[in-house]
Amino acid sequence: AERPRRGGVIGYTISALVLMVGVFMLAAFGVALGYGERQAARGFAVAVGVALSCGLSGFLLFRRHRDGALLTRDGFLVVVASWLAVSAFGALPFVLTGSIPSYTDAFFETTSGFTTTGASILRDVEALPRSILFWRSLTHWIGGMGIVVLTVAVLPRLGIGGLKLMRSEAPGPTLDKLTPRLTETAKILWLIYLALTAAACGLLLLAGLDWFDALTTTFGTVATAGFSPRNASVGAYGSAFVDVVVTVFMLLAAVNFSLYFQVVRGRPGLLLNNPELRVFAAIFLIAAALVTLSVTGGGGYRSFGEGVRYASFQVASILTTTGFSTADYDAWPALAKGVLVTLMLVGGCAGSTAGGVKVIRLVTLFKQGLNELKYLVHPQGIFMLKIGDRPVKKDLLYPVAVFFFLYVALVMATALIVSAAGEDLLSALATGLAMAGNIGPGFGSVGPARNYAHYPDLVKWWLSFAMLVARLEVYTVLVLLTPTFWRR
Amino acid sequence: AERPRRGGVIGYTISALVLMVGVFMLAAFGVALGYGERQAARGFAVAVGVALSCGLSGFLLFRRHRDGALLTRDGFLVVVASWLAVSAFGALPFVLTGSIPSYTDAFFETTSGFTTTGASILRDVEALPRSILFWRSLTHWIGGMGIVVLTVAVLPRLGIGGLKLMRSEAPGPTLDKLTPRLTETAKILWLIYLALTAAACGLLLLAGLDWFDALTTTFGTVATAGFSPRNASVGAYGSAFVDVVVTVFMLLAAVNFSLYFQVVRGRPGLLLNNPELRVFAAIFLIAAALVTLSVTGGGGYRSFGEGVRYASFQVASILTTTGFSTADYDAWPALAKGVLVTLMLVGGCAGSTAGGVKVIRLVTLFKQGLNELKYLVHPQGIFMLKIGDRPVKKDLLYPVAVFFFLYVALVMATALIVSAAGEDLLSALATGLAMAGNIGPGFGSVGPARNYAHYPDLVKWWLSFAMLVARLEVYTVLVLLTPTFWRR
Repeated sequence: AERPRRGGVIGYTISALVLMVGVFMLAAFGVALGYGERQAARGFAVAVGVALSCGLSGFLLFRRHRDGALLTRDGFLVVVASWLAVSAFGALPFVLTGSIPSYTDAFFETTSGFTTTGASILRDVEALPRSILFWRSLTHWIGGMGIVVLTVAVLPRLGIGGLKLMRSEAPGPTLDKLTPRLTETAKILWLIYLALTAAACGLLLLAGLDWFDALTTTFGTVATAGFSPRNASVGAYGSAFVDVVVTVFMLLAAVNFSLYFQVVRGRPGLLLNNPELRVFAAIFLIAAALVTLSVTGGGGYRSFGEGVRYASFQVASILTTTGFSTADYDAWPALAKGVLVTLMLVGGCAGSTAGGVKVIRLVTLFKQGLNELKYLVHPQGIFMLKIGDRPVKKDLLYPVAVFFFLYVALVMATALIVSAAGEDLLSALATGLAMAGNIGPGFGSVGPARNYAHYPDLVKWWLSFAMLVARLEVYTVLVLLTPTFWRR
Repeated sequence: AERPRRGGVIGYTISALVLMVGVFMLAAFGVALGYGERQAARGFAVAVGVALSCGLSGFLLFRRHRDGALLTRDGFLVVVASWLAVSAFGALPFVLTGSIPSYTDAFFETTSGFTTTGASILRDVEALPRSILFWRSLTHWIGGMGIVVLTVAVLPRLGIGGLKLMRSEAPGPTLDKLTPRLTETAKILWLIYLALTAAACGLLLLAGLDWFDALTTTFGTVATAGFSPRNASVGAYGSAFVDVVVTVFMLLAAVNFSLYFQVVRGRPGLLLNNPELRVFAAIFLIAAALVTLSVTGGGGYRSFGEGVRYASFQVASILTTTGFSTADYDAWPALAKGVLVTLMLVGGCAGSTAGGVKVIRLVTLFKQGLNELKYLVHPQGIFMLKIGDRPVKKDLLYPVAVFFFLYVALVMATALIVSAAGEDLLSALATGLAMAGNIGPGFGSVGPARNYAHYPDLVKWWLSFAMLVARLEVYTVLVLLTPTFWRR
């Protein structure tokens, strides 16, 4: 029968990913041994054992289906189930080492890790074993890897809204078949990701950070994610060089990876002429200028240079949806906070590790807005939607427009649920924006100097759900909730 | 030449409206005489003189163009220029009576009046002459009259996004020609408006309010606007009967007036089966239930009945974008505030005096969202967008989707500008929502117990602009800012 065979392929893929998580956990286990963290090592050993045995069992059980065919729609199930499975297993080390006793908290932290959100329930990270902090940051890096392949190669094939649009714009790599095997394309994307990782880590080492801080900070940076091994985030290093390196690499990681692919293939022109990238750069520069103005005016920064440094860092951090901080921006003057909250709705470029609505979608809606105004003047006219020099099929516009609506609905639904838990209005709205944007910190009780520990368990489960919905471009998760999907 | 003739028609229309404002002012002048408010009467006399003489001069000057033809696109200019002109002249009594010395403040208050927003810069309304308060509330009533005719009859002809959609849904009245003359249709709509006004006023008199309070409160209610002659808004009357009457009439005024038109024509079925109205009713009931739960739980209301009364009033007030209050809801528990802030994005039904995104647009986006999910499962399928039993042309979706984006952009731009003036984040966001929704009060420094007096002049001008943009369905104003519009 065809049905069990497809189930087998799905099972095979998920098992392979759980196995992979187990292998990555081994690295953290190694860190535990290296730092002589005995208790943590014991916890990791059990977690690795569980992950590897579960993964291996499934792998062997479903091995004969490895070359089986999947329907396109099965892709949604594979993607969502994979993300849930790796989060479920990835949470084990936190619980088993005793670092995060509650599984709810551990699942939240791990989902936040794999979705590259960076929202934390930990009040004092520096009190935790280094191996646990390493694992925590490593989930970001793995998640970032997954996201790039997903958005550049997998989701466009599934027809996920707005990503088709990105593809039509920058004809990049696509997986030839939707199979569990990794293709050449994915490997090239990962090589680019590895190159960014190596460059960032090298520069951070050069800046004087030790291996541990350099590597974990790099994971949080290139995945535009935001977990830091320090309570004061990147601000703990107090180094202008570190700030600049992290600022630059957050921005680089928020660029569409297929553009780097084109550069590798000898077509750098596509990078420089990319309209999404240009708008992204313009937003960064304008926002950084406004925030600099604001913080040097009344934000207590002594010099203009210091203002530029802190402002650019924070603008890059929020715009790219990373969520690192070098200052408590919640205490900044009103204009700076106004700019940052606006950026929370924007996000990076499509096909990057960044979250948010994404620049290409906003550009599309803005341009179509101009077209609608032209139609009012010339109702019989024909106005093409063009992004750069290329015309965009009008059909691609619906999913983009509806995406924006669903995104805002996710923000408001999250704010409403957080309100129901008794949270003040600003913190509730900021939580909605931070979750839907996969940013991490927000304002108020979830500001950069605070965390998500105080929310009740039910809220934490919703927030985990919201992070996943947002990370998987909304449609991927929602489609699983429709009866149509489950009908034969 | 054709051009001056069209200009003449536009001039004629605006002059006629300014003349009308002068005539309405005469009523307020009468109130000043009746209450023996000498100083106010002198101010009104001058204002009436200016309005009537300017209106009459223009009227005579452009009289020969009264039957001239307009291009469809001239409609945008007529609508926006009319609204600006009546606000500019309508502000005169406030300045000339000395009630609001600053013209900026007076213009803000008057725009807030004519746009049926109800945001005020007055700290103590009870200290003002009654004639001024009468005029202030009368601007609401005039604005409401204008809005109903505009959205039901004029804007759909101009092709303004989403209103076409409403028209296709409830085949209602349309002006046969876009001429300055009032047609039969407009007269019927106004009769309905008059009937609502008379009924509300009668019931408020029955509830024990004096003529002055009954009439001014009615103006604020049937226009879903919100200016009250009392500092404590409708709460000042402390009467359950008054609260119920105002709640019911706010809701009635937020219903598409073409449905009443159908009822008058003997087709009440269209009212009962209207899908927008059903969703509107459902939103009201669910929100009222949640807020009741919240305020009886921890909001300090003694009985369940009292909770229902205050919760329904406030939910109706925000959902219909009126902005009256019977309690300081900014001091309510978190859930109640979360529900209210969510409602600020919703608004009433299209073709009513209510503002906001409007229910029909949200229903459309939600349904298209479901369709997009179906497309992901069946990429080759054809899924019709249906509202009620009627299919909606897909082309109508673009302006709706883009409207939502432009609306959110207006909210965020306003929040950003308010932030730049040093306002805290919650108040800034609430100001954006309150202006774009034509609601009036928000949260924080613009909460129901506060006002807009503290904003700098430049911000007040922006807010006046934002209220107008929102009230005229965004596109009407924005189209005037495009070069295409001004090209021959």
